Amino acid sequence: MTKNDLLECHKRIKPFIHNTPVLTSTQINKITGAEIYFKCDNFQKMGAFKMRGATNAILQLSDDQKKRGVVTHSSGNFAQALSLAASSIGVKAYIVMPSTATEIKKTAVKGYLGELIECEPNLKAREINAKKIEQSKGATFIHPSNDNNVILGQGTACKELLEDYNDLEYVLTPVGGGGLIAGSALAAKFFGNKCKVIGAEPFEADDAYRSLKSGKIETNITTNTIADGLKTQLGDKNFPIIQDEVHSIIRITEIEIIQSMRIIWERLKIICEPSCALPLAAVLKNKDFFKAKKLGIIISGGNVDLNNLPF
Amino acid sequence: MTKNDLLECHKRIKPFIHNTPVLTSTQINKITGAEIYFKCDNFQKMGAFKMRGATNAILQLSDDQKKRGVVTHSSGNFAQALSLAASSIGVKAYIVMPSTATEIKKTAVKGYLGELIECEPNLKAREINAKKIEQSKGATFIHPSNDNNVILGQGTACKELLEDYNDLEYVLTPVGGGGLIAGSALAAKFFGNKCKVIGAEPFEADDAYRSLKSGKIETNITTNTIADGLKTQLGDKNFPIIQDEVHSIIRITEIEIIQSMRIIWERLKIICEPSCALPLAAVLKNKDFFKAKKLGIIISGGNVDLNNLPF
Repeated sequence: MTKNDLLECHKRIKPFIHNTPVLTSTQINKITGAEIYFKCDNFQKMGAFKMRGATNAILQLSDDQKKRGVVTHSSGNFAQALSLAASSIGVKAYIVMPSTATEIKKTAVKGYLGELIECEPNLKAREINAKKIEQSKGATFIHPSNDNNVILGQGTACKELLEDYNDLEYVLTPVGGGGLIAGSALAAKFFGNKCKVIGAEPFEADDAYRSLKSGKIETNITTNTIADGLKTQLGDKNFPIIQDEVHSIIRITEIEIIQSMRIIWERLKIICEPSCALPLAAVLKNKDFFKAKKLGIIISGGNVDLNNLPF
Repeated sequence: MTKNDLLECHKRIKPFIHNTPVLTSTQINKITGAEIYFKCDNFQKMGAFKMRGATNAILQLSDDQKKRGVVTHSSGNFAQALSLAASSIGVKAYIVMPSTATEIKKTAVKGYLGELIECEPNLKAREINAKKIEQSKGATFIHPSNDNNVILGQGTACKELLEDYNDLEYVLTPVGGGGLIAGSALAAKFFGNKCKVIGAEPFEADDAYRSLKSGKIETNITTNTIADGLKTQLGDKNFPIIQDEVHSIIRITEIEIIQSMRIIWERLKIICEPSCALPLAAVLKNKDFFKAKKLGIIISGGNVDLNNLPF
């Protein structure tokens, strides 16, 4: 993927997304000793950066493909993102979701006009059901993170951040399926000024950290983390980009996630998901390394259940 | 107070405040049927619009007065605002606070370098202690809302909003002590295009609503509202402005406050105080009146105790 690919992608999706605001906090800068710019994609349409990649993937389809719709399986933000992106563009979206998903999530997908297909709560059932829709409807399957068009779309958040602050030394993102960090690393390479990208990942779902060490894609046996957006696995499209372009990945404990999330809520006054708290936690536990550095942090999403907060 | 006074005030305080972002939500526009622009002063320095008025009041002091410091009595956001505004300008701030105030509030004042003076938890003790400091230190007393320089400062939030969106038909604010709504009404008069200002006030502390009806300043006997920032009373400086310039005041129930607060948290993804939820609640309960209108809402502050949420 080239600089021009990312430029074209951004131009393509601009009418459908927000250029989200960047917030700072004197207090957080004092606590960390760094100078941090928070790119608030919790304010993105449908509440997460996933809107960017979903929009780009759909806009890259042929007219014929658009007529037949798109399908994905997800119980998270990508389900909502694909639903809203599709309806904004006038395309039908089929969303395969485990029957155990919360009512809030099901309602959100339907609110964005996605057609919900419930299945048994396991990966195999999800894949079979998605495949059925590909075959019966001719719909195009779109993966939440392991898709070049999705990766490019996710990179536009970091591109916008670097357009506003072109002297950032590091941009930090959470690592889940790997789409955001791979896209951000491409954006930093093409549009940054020696800007490096660092990932933050839960100890409890550290497949990307271990994959970078071993040189091949590792999997998570268990994923007992509050950061529900980060339970997913790297894929063969984003892993090589991460290998080539990402500076390092820092692992974070569950307690560090909750403490960092609370600082963001109290100091930045924004609602963000547990997943968003990992990059700040990475800075807090490596103060010497980040001291006096100019940092960007991507706040990836704000879809939390207010009835189920960790504090 | 003239248009030029407000212009000069804004120029004066600009180096010390944020021009806070304006957020919108497609979902909230759908729910209300209106087009709403939220001016997010929960992102203001120290987390509330009060920073604006406090800064203006201190900057208007003579050099001699600045040397001797400022004093106020408050257990709310104005205590923090005066502390931070004073320390930013290099002035000493004495804050009289009831001994029963929470540790969070006391710590915040000290964090902003205000000198805390604790007193018995009643208005008389607060006034006596503030008077003592005026006399012993020569400090200037600054009232949280009933002060022309404070009123002008608070008006700059609405001025900024109208600079970004000059065709707003109504701007809605909460009503507590009356500083924000009076300042906003002046800003709308001087910088709006036939823009009218509407207040939203708890039924449980509806002194402003009753004062407008009777034509004289009414008081609250009890103030059993979750909107702790709105328990305060109108004063003789802001009441005449409210009488002359404010379109109307809409009263809100406690349940409506909590429902509206939840919509703001879930849809705008921002942390705001219960007080901030009243203007949206006013729109929600008067959908016919506000239908298809272009509205501004001042989100006044974000200092909430996350251990004590109403949901």
